[in-house]
Amino acid sequence: MKIVCIGAGNVATHLAQALFRAGYVIVQVVSRTEEHVWSLAQSVDAGWTTDFDRIEAADLYIYSVSDAVLEETIRRNPQTEGLHVHTAGSMPLTLFEGLKRRGGVLYPLQTFSKEKPVDFGEVPLFVEASGCDDLNTLKKLGADIGCKTFEADSTQRQQLHLAAVFACNFTNHLFAIAESILKEANLPFEVLRPLIQETINKTATLSPREAQTGPAVRKDDNVMNKHLSKLSDHPQWQEIYRLLSESILKNH
Amino acid sequence: MKIVCIGAGNVATHLAQALFRAGYVIVQVVSRTEEHVWSLAQSVDAGWTTDFDRIEAADLYIYSVSDAVLEETIRRNPQTEGLHVHTAGSMPLTLFEGLKRRGGVLYPLQTFSKEKPVDFGEVPLFVEASGCDDLNTLKKLGADIGCKTFEADSTQRQQLHLAAVFACNFTNHLFAIAESILKEANLPFEVLRPLIQETINKTATLSPREAQTGPAVRKDDNVMNKHLSKLSDHPQWQEIYRLLSESILKNH
Repeated sequence: MKIVCIGAGNVATHLAQALFRAGYVIVQVVSRTEEHVWSLAQSVDAGWTTDFDRIEAADLYIYSVSDAVLEETIRRNPQTEGLHVHTAGSMPLTLFEGLKRRGGVLYPLQTFSKEKPVDFGEVPLFVEASGCDDLNTLKKLGADIGCKTFEADSTQRQQLHLAAVFACNFTNHLFAIAESILKEANLPFEVLRPLIQETINKTATLSPREAQTGPAVRKDDNVMNKHLSKLSDHPQWQEIYRLLSESILKNH
Repeated sequence: MKIVCIGAGNVATHLAQALFRAGYVIVQVVSRTEEHVWSLAQSVDAGWTTDFDRIEAADLYIYSVSDAVLEETIRRNPQTEGLHVHTAGSMPLTLFEGLKRRGGVLYPLQTFSKEKPVDFGEVPLFVEASGCDDLNTLKKLGADIGCKTFEADSTQRQQLHLAAVFACNFTNHLFAIAESILKEANLPFEVLRPLIQETINKTATLSPREAQTGPAVRKDDNVMNKHLSKLSDHPQWQEIYRLLSESILKNH
């Protein structure tokens, strides 16, 4: 199976390298950014181009580009045969119907950084395709790179992406606020790490709802009022504190 | 050194058992709840009472009771000699001054569940005392049970507690919201676990502020508007989404 990878960002890089390691042939890497495309192509023994009119014929095209340019990028590929898949959480499969291509999705639910190696055994991969053969191709590909592979339709994938924003992006922002609060007391963020780790470990045996602790779920107004007054220089954090505490109370 | 433990909840239990394992002598466990006090006393080879007028003489009294009854509980102890310490994040050391006792604080920054064993090597312990000898006693005690022990004054400890609410209690609530969102799409919370773990792992090499990813920090209005409309049945989650996204934007 010949693969062309379109995009050379974090997802494209880790996915192409995992496929290469699993024995797949990457014939070409395509990206506007010469520096990125070249170094990715080198690492997976592939040809490369920055010219979207020169995309080669292949069995599988993987588009890992930003949502904003995804549709336009697919449309610019002169090759219309083969299976075309994107890797975006919030973009539907119907995108390809409109463009008259055999389409699919490979959505790895993980946060990737270029410089950090990825253990694909720890990456749930959500696949979707309109044809049964294509779906099986994507499932096999997921298994070959070591992923736990699940089927998810476009609606489920959008819910996954939304849930990931709460559990990952927003969580990280709460860590950033905690870091700032500690800095004001000359304490390093590291002292919170064991507590954060235990918060996650608990969800292995209790649902997050059952595992809830803290002043809000105890309705400890005394502590909550102390905390709110300590946040008086940070009205936005105060509002976050108030809103999340109300939401916890409502949930219990 | 003779120790009396006052309280028989989660913190009291894990702390008393760790001290016992480290070779300290617990002479007595004191708690209103007969069932709890008896089983904790058994496990640390101690006497017990539910009568606060019968607290025995000791070198160290550890109060692990709720903030609301802490002051009253200390006052009810007929013994005024020895070192009296509490384990509460948000209560000041000056509490003891008012009660004319030698006072201190042992604040373990961890979330405890009775049925789950605690690795004290993973628990940062924050100590405070007015006397230098007492401070050294508490530091040694912390080291003896395997904790990483830090000095923190009452203001720092209150900031720690506040930061912990953001990083642990509020984070857990975001997990609960993510769980509900996934449930609506018939997906289990478990699929998010690798992503959540990686979010924490990243903070070992990047500060949370630097590690921020997601639609808000990218100013991806297209995705954010899609997400907000998907939350239309949950106005409170919508408000949380909006407020946290604004706060991320403001921070970058």
